[in-house]
Amino acid sequence: MLSVIKIGGNVIDDPAKLDTFLKTFASIDGPKILVHGGGKIATDIGRQMGIEPKYADGRRITDAATLHLVTMVYGGLINKQITAQLQALGCNAIGLTGADASIIPAQKRPVKAIDFGFVGDVTSDQINTGILKIMLDAGLTPVLAPLTHDGAGNMLNTNADTIAQEVAKALSSLFTVQLIYCFEKKGVLSDPSNEDSVISRIVATTFEALKSNGTVSGGMIPKLENALAAVSSGVQQVVIGAADDLELLINNQAGTVIA
Amino acid sequence: MLSVIKIGGNVIDDPAKLDTFLKTFASIDGPKILVHGGGKIATDIGRQMGIEPKYADGRRITDAATLHLVTMVYGGLINKQITAQLQALGCNAIGLTGADASIIPAQKRPVKAIDFGFVGDVTSDQINTGILKIMLDAGLTPVLAPLTHDGAGNMLNTNADTIAQEVAKALSSLFTVQLIYCFEKKGVLSDPSNEDSVISRIVATTFEALKSNGTVSGGMIPKLENALAAVSSGVQQVVIGAADDLELLINNQAGTVIA
Repeated sequence: MLSVIKIGGNVIDDPAKLDTFLKTFASIDGPKILVHGGGKIATDIGRQMGIEPKYADGRRITDAATLHLVTMVYGGLINKQITAQLQALGCNAIGLTGADASIIPAQKRPVKAIDFGFVGDVTSDQINTGILKIMLDAGLTPVLAPLTHDGAGNMLNTNADTIAQEVAKALSSLFTVQLIYCFEKKGVLSDPSNEDSVISRIVATTFEALKSNGTVSGGMIPKLENALAAVSSGVQQVVIGAADDLELLINNQAGTVIA
Repeated sequence: MLSVIKIGGNVIDDPAKLDTFLKTFASIDGPKILVHGGGKIATDIGRQMGIEPKYADGRRITDAATLHLVTMVYGGLINKQITAQLQALGCNAIGLTGADASIIPAQKRPVKAIDFGFVGDVTSDQINTGILKIMLDAGLTPVLAPLTHDGAGNMLNTNADTIAQEVAKALSSLFTVQLIYCFEKKGVLSDPSNEDSVISRIVATTFEALKSNGTVSGGMIPKLENALAAVSSGVQQVVIGAADDLELLINNQAGTVIA
């Protein structure tokens, strides 16, 4: 079983949480890939450099200065610090962006109502699974930053959830894959005010019911739609839960399983 | 023949020069590795972030803030921009630091008269040649940033010349290796004021003569001593010349050959 595990800013911005997470991650048997997001540190370093977050119609955009910033912070600082820490834990990590070995080619998002700037859209059929398999077979653990490239010499900013999902889908032709999303909550909750109300399992039919009765709503709807799409593309299961529970998530003893 | 080619700040800081260099580099047949240095951009970004270059007794030191800066700029910005550009030129580049796949483990330099801070010393016997060979055999071109790691979770700053030399020495057990240093001059000059006075070939015995009659002096002495040491450790030849002449350097039609 290949585990593709995504962590976001809530883990990256908290050194103690990241440390605990990486210890558990390093101890996972079998092939694994870590996908990391950004975090407040990019915003903080941007502010020091006079780069303020840019928005168009309330949506975050990536202008040239922001692209440089995220290439430095995601591809350099965060990626290499995680890699060095995993190496110290005996995990043979290799930090990569989508440009490296052209693992994740992307298309710059077309300008429609909003110009998102240097943002890359990815589809799983473009991912270079061959080189990822060579690395995994060599005992390496790829650590992927949320960056891709356009094949014309430009880096692009790509959502870490999307990278995790498309990599998991692409590799499901070569491995049995589980995709684990670590987020702030213990799983998909039936009662948002109660952390103990984790729904342990969601499948396509129960998702429709949860959606129509209003149990899942807002940002959770596209997250679950994407998870179900990954499953129907060959990913064995998607698990959504808290980073602190990684060991339990891996063994299906916590979080929400989407299958 | 494996070519290990090092470029420094004079190429990295000049987009037109870098562009020309990368076009020639991408066109080189056979396995190759690019090692890049830093450049003024790190100092400029450091200034924006309030990080001034630090010195002790006139020697540059790497404090914690500087380490973060170079990890971002060398390992992120410069490394990934070069990688994306090489990908656009049809060269399957993979940008790496010494922490990635633990290619270059290092020791933090011991504190003696000067505390250099987070600087890593490297010896060729520690370099993980196996994973470099797997990458080269897979048709990849490693692009190495001047960063290593201590195996205890810390990145370290390491001179790019040293990385190029130790990687070339280590890989000479697996490949016939030529090591090419691109620098400001057309080669080792017999008359520093005359760019056309390139000494075409230096060997151990002629080096001693050049040193005693004062033709080579100052910083060129350790450079040539290191080159001769690389040759006596198995590197077939070291070539020193201008980045603009890369195509000629590769074919021994320009620069100084140390053998």
